[in-house]
Amino acid sequence: MKVKVGINGYGTIGKRAATAVGQQDDMEVIGVTKTRPTFEAKVANDLGLPLYVPDGSAEAFKAAGIKVAGTIKDMYKKADIIIDCTPGKVAEAYKQEYSEAGVKGIFQGGEDHSLTGISFNASANYKESWGAQFSRVVSCNTTGLIRTLYPLDKKYKIQNVFATLIRRSADPGDSKNGPINAIEPSLKLPTHHGPDVQSIMPWLNIQTMAVKVPTTLMHLHTIMVRLSSEVSTDDIIALWKRTPRVKLVKGKDNVRSTAQIMELARDLGRTRSDMYEIIVWEDGVKVVGDTLYFYQAVHQESDVIPEIVDCVRSMCKIEENASASMKKTDKAMGI
Amino acid sequence: MKVKVGINGYGTIGKRAATAVGQQDDMEVIGVTKTRPTFEAKVANDLGLPLYVPDGSAEAFKAAGIKVAGTIKDMYKKADIIIDCTPGKVAEAYKQEYSEAGVKGIFQGGEDHSLTGISFNASANYKESWGAQFSRVVSCNTTGLIRTLYPLDKKYKIQNVFATLIRRSADPGDSKNGPINAIEPSLKLPTHHGPDVQSIMPWLNIQTMAVKVPTTLMHLHTIMVRLSSEVSTDDIIALWKRTPRVKLVKGKDNVRSTAQIMELARDLGRTRSDMYEIIVWEDGVKVVGDTLYFYQAVHQESDVIPEIVDCVRSMCKIEENASASMKKTDKAMGI
Amino acid sequence: MKVKVGINGYGTIGKRAATAVGQQDDMEVIGVTKTRPTFEAKVANDLGLPLYVPDGSAEAFKAAGIKVAGTIKDMYKKADIIIDCTPGKVAEAYKQEYSEAGVKGIFQGGEDHSLTGISFNASANYKESWGAQFSRVVSCNTTGLIRTLYPLDKKYKIQNVFATLIRRSADPGDSKNGPINAIEPSLKLPTHHGPDVQSIMPWLNIQTMAVKVPTTLMHLHTIMVRLSSEVSTDDIIALWKRTPRVKLVKGKDNVRSTAQIMELARDLGRTRSDMYEIIVWEDGVKVVGDTLYFYQAVHQESDVIPEIVDCVRSMCKIEENASASMKKTDKAMGI
Amino acid sequence: MKVKVGINGYGTIGKRAATAVGQQDDMEVIGVTKTRPTFEAKVANDLGLPLYVPDGSAEAFKAAGIKVAGTIKDMYKKADIIIDCTPGKVAEAYKQEYSEAGVKGIFQGGEDHSLTGISFNASANYKESWGAQFSRVVSCNTTGLIRTLYPLDKKYKIQNVFATLIRRSADPGDSKNGPINAIEPSLKLPTHHGPDVQSIMPWLNIQTMAVKVPTTLMHLHTIMVRLSSEVSTDDIIALWKRTPRVKLVKGKDNVRSTAQIMELARDLGRTRSDMYEIIVWEDGVKVVGDTLYFYQAVHQESDVIPEIVDCVRSMCKIEENASASMKKTDKAMGI
Repeated sequence: MKVKVGINGYGTIGKRAATAVGQQDDMEVIGVTKTRPTFEAKVANDLGLPLYVPDGSAEAFKAAGIKVAGTIKDMYKKADIIIDCTPGKVAEAYKQEYSEAGVKGIFQGGEDHSLTGISFNASANYKESWGAQFSRVVSCNTTGLIRTLYPLDKKYKIQNVFATLIRRSADPGDSKNGPINAIEPSLKLPTHHGPDVQSIMPWLNIQTMAVKVPTTLMHLHTIMVRLSSEVSTDDIIALWKRTPRVKLVKGKDNVRSTAQIMELARDLGRTRSDMYEIIVWEDGVKVVGDTLYFYQAVHQESDVIPEIVDCVRSMCKIEENASASMKKTDKAMGI
Repeated sequence: MKVKVGINGYGTIGKRAATAVGQQDDMEVIGVTKTRPTFEAKVANDLGLPLYVPDGSAEAFKAAGIKVAGTIKDMYKKADIIIDCTPGKVAEAYKQEYSEAGVKGIFQGGEDHSLTGISFNASANYKESWGAQFSRVVSCNTTGLIRTLYPLDKKYKIQNVFATLIRRSADPGDSKNGPINAIEPSLKLPTHHGPDVQSIMPWLNIQTMAVKVPTTLMHLHTIMVRLSSEVSTDDIIALWKRTPRVKLVKGKDNVRSTAQIMELARDLGRTRSDMYEIIVWEDGVKVVGDTLYFYQAVHQESDVIPEIVDCVRSMCKIEENASASMKKTDKAMGI
Repeated sequence: MKVKVGINGYGTIGKRAATAVGQQDDMEVIGVTKTRPTFEAKVANDLGLPLYVPDGSAEAFKAAGIKVAGTIKDMYKKADIIIDCTPGKVAEAYKQEYSEAGVKGIFQGGEDHSLTGISFNASANYKESWGAQFSRVVSCNTTGLIRTLYPLDKKYKIQNVFATLIRRSADPGDSKNGPINAIEPSLKLPTHHGPDVQSIMPWLNIQTMAVKVPTTLMHLHTIMVRLSSEVSTDDIIALWKRTPRVKLVKGKDNVRSTAQIMELARDLGRTRSDMYEIIVWEDGVKVVGDTLYFYQAVHQESDVIPEIVDCVRSMCKIEENASASMKKTDKAMGI
Repeated sequence: MKVKVGINGYGTIGKRAATAVGQQDDMEVIGVTKTRPTFEAKVANDLGLPLYVPDGSAEAFKAAGIKVAGTIKDMYKKADIIIDCTPGKVAEAYKQEYSEAGVKGIFQGGEDHSLTGISFNASANYKESWGAQFSRVVSCNTTGLIRTLYPLDKKYKIQNVFATLIRRSADPGDSKNGPINAIEPSLKLPTHHGPDVQSIMPWLNIQTMAVKVPTTLMHLHTIMVRLSSEVSTDDIIALWKRTPRVKLVKGKDNVRSTAQIMELARDLGRTRSDMYEIIVWEDGVKVVGDTLYFYQAVHQESDVIPEIVDCVRSMCKIEENASASMKKTDKAMGI
């Protein structure tokens, strides 16, 4: 029998989670929620996804020609687990609702680790969410850092990490936020990204700084890692070639920027032109002595999606083995 | 038997033409060409498209791990028709090559009408390219103008048109061209867009101005049309709802800009997240007396693709009826 | 004796008004107001401008090391006239305050004409604000349209105008607003710009459409004007060469976009690198029959500043002659 | 007697150098050069700067209404020293020309250190260019790094530095270069910035990475410095407050991004709205143990200008003392 998954919030992450869950054979989407009758609600209808709306707002949806399956609380009753994709910083109230409805809940990285006490990354700590009622899939940037750093640390033991996160300022579908022409530093140091990585790898010595720049496509990280021993550039590249959900590209193949990475995703026929893998530039990896320098790019809209699917499997005890779950997820999603 | 199509140039238009031709049951891609061993050449390999390269460059491709099927001239020999997607303004030489190889050729709107003497739009003049050796599918902007203006003129007779084209400055996969922060007018008046529409609708009284702005997503047109009689806004909307390859959206459904149109294309699961239809804002259509004002958006990377498929059918005499060809194309492409 | 001017709101317009008033010999700035202790408040201190703040907020300013001269209402008492540069749509309350304090008030184009019943442009209707207690200087875009259209209409009688306004989305000092990568049409047609021009030229037949684009530098207009008779392109250019506060530039001198216009303003040593004139591209003016097409660019931060100075003179009855006031203003500002 | 300075190339750096030299009382601009009759050449005329042009191009300038003083080689004869502001990577030929003409030459940071064998920063090595025939003022980014790092190293001895340079992609007056919507890493590691700092501070252990982002305003650096001992954040801030050409700003005064820094420069009435100082965010400085983290912003168009003036003094033996020269320069330029 398939695990019944409800998606609370059908925005950037919610709609991707709905697609990815629908591609698996051991889980199914029993509903999605939307608070306003936008084009995205119409698309949910077109895709045959049962749409649940806030109490009292069904009329507004019907007036816009959108079919409604019930209220959000109706959806909770039908689900085994809710993937919470509501906007940031209001999750405490939803956690309460899920508790009362007796459903499990997966939260996103916009929430603090303290909300759930467990954070999730498939490669690094799949088992920690096993059977849990609540867990949190860490943010896109944190997922990106763990994907490359966890295998490095496991194999070569990291002394310390210093990363600068050059963040896109708005998602591609957003025409409201800027800046149009400025660079904005995150002045509160250290930024929250380092501690967030430590919610999964508490032993890691990591410092981060961050800036926002006027692009919508991807985040890009510049990373310096001091290792416990001298390793060759080739060893590092070979390691990441074996690492799931990490993909190497080359500047000399004309993948010179985030623009070409997104073009590659479109050419590969990915759903919504997404790039689930963390992208590392093979010709931008350099070891000097015991120190490794590299660039990586993170598709903020989609890199956490396969993690969410794996998190469902761990929390709902569908598959005990992390690697087996990841393979299953990736195959179904065409990664 | 399927018509054998070669694609000369596997860039923005070429790769989309390859996908669209491959989706039809009466034509097939027998090869694509690429001059440099980029990631796009690798993707062509991954997709199983035979790759033809310039004489003497096969080694460079092999060194980059890319399989080559032969030279570009080898491809000409296997094809019934070439879709020319080479960069602008060098088409005269290619036309000569196609003539010598005895293959038909379809050129793009970057070339002048005089190159072929025939220009193509499926709704407006499908028959004019019937059996022709060479034809030209007009540019993305011209296609956009004809899609909405041709049915208007047919039904309500247009007195004159004045349009401003607000053009995206670079395609999304391009990280070289700007401007980053400026608006640039096309000072040579009238801009070439009006005369280009007249290559299909020579009787139309149309004037255009154009500016370039710092976005990669879509072109947007502001259009004023003086009609021969008073018509209601509702009549105009009803007409375009019946018009193929024109799609109405609403600001009040939260489709407020080109960003949300592209998001809609991604949500609809379109290949490469393309939007083949010309988008008209339903709540941005307004008739005042005999004058109609409206906004439309044009996806520069893809709106001509279904036209190219229809042009193949007309030139290769596969289907006599324009409407039948358009329906077939659109169904196969999921429009 | 100099007219005593208070500036309510020391932001984009307020700080420029302060500078321009300070450059005149028949008026002086007796104070400016600021609601929060920002770097702009510090600069006001540095420039020796008495700073007035909301009742009860003096402590916050002092804590930030900023000197305060009194409360905003204290400033009203010292002034003959207030230039209201407060944020849009709250002017009704301020008008009430100015009435109670017995001072005159100039409002900005973000407010509706109905607030004051009089709108101001120096060339077109200087006399209408003569001695008035309240007037409104029309917005940057409306000022731009009137600067070029009023002399055209006076000399050649305009039949009708259709303009598209391609608007910058945020000012250069703003790092909050977007869009980063989209074009957004103003769907409510006709846009308010046409009626706003009619607040000064009520007889003019004008229609406007507008879009927002991702740039901070200037607005750009594409304009079509149908005249009552055939005129040559040279006549039009000659007319604008004689028109105050209109400046012609040429693409062939490498002024190809709004970026080079702003560079020119920097090279000319303008205060804050402002361009007070409306910029018309001389090689982008074209007459076809009785119809004139042209492009103009509007520096949204500064084109209204000389108008504000003239409006003070008209309202405070310092100078009866519009032309004399304009010449005085322009000379003092280095235009 | 004043030192006679010729400016070869009247673009972004050249025109600022002309202004700054003109503000000094011990040097004067005897001419500037321009290769094409652009608006900038017209402005040079307006400012009364003698304009020298390539042999044979005087007619083209005259046709555009621009006065010409002679050929470029004529200018060499009148000068004691040439500030070379020609485009990058062609300096070898110009060095030859200057040698033949017997004039001194200052090159820019776009050239390699090997061209001159001496590189210049006023604080760090003023004396090394004393009386030299050729010297090189290091690039805007290198100047920025040395301004903050040199005093740090002198006082607290730096163990090592790791910096990420987030670079603006085009200057504000440029409407050609992009990217519009992408982040582009500098894949060749280490980037040239570290070695370039070492041309002035050869003992410094520094590694750099760099990306290009779609903005025109300023470069921004994220910097990690490991010091030889524990120091407090306040000590570091106090040090930079005493450092010439370094300016501290605060996010809490609303200087949150490069946009507000440029706004501040405009408000301060700087020529061309330039910001000659390196900007450090006071509330973005943080010491953790022996490691210092900070953000700084670099105005690529102007930070080297005062250095160029000082370099003239050193090379022409006008002033022996670095500090005296810097004070003189800064006072004249209003820094």
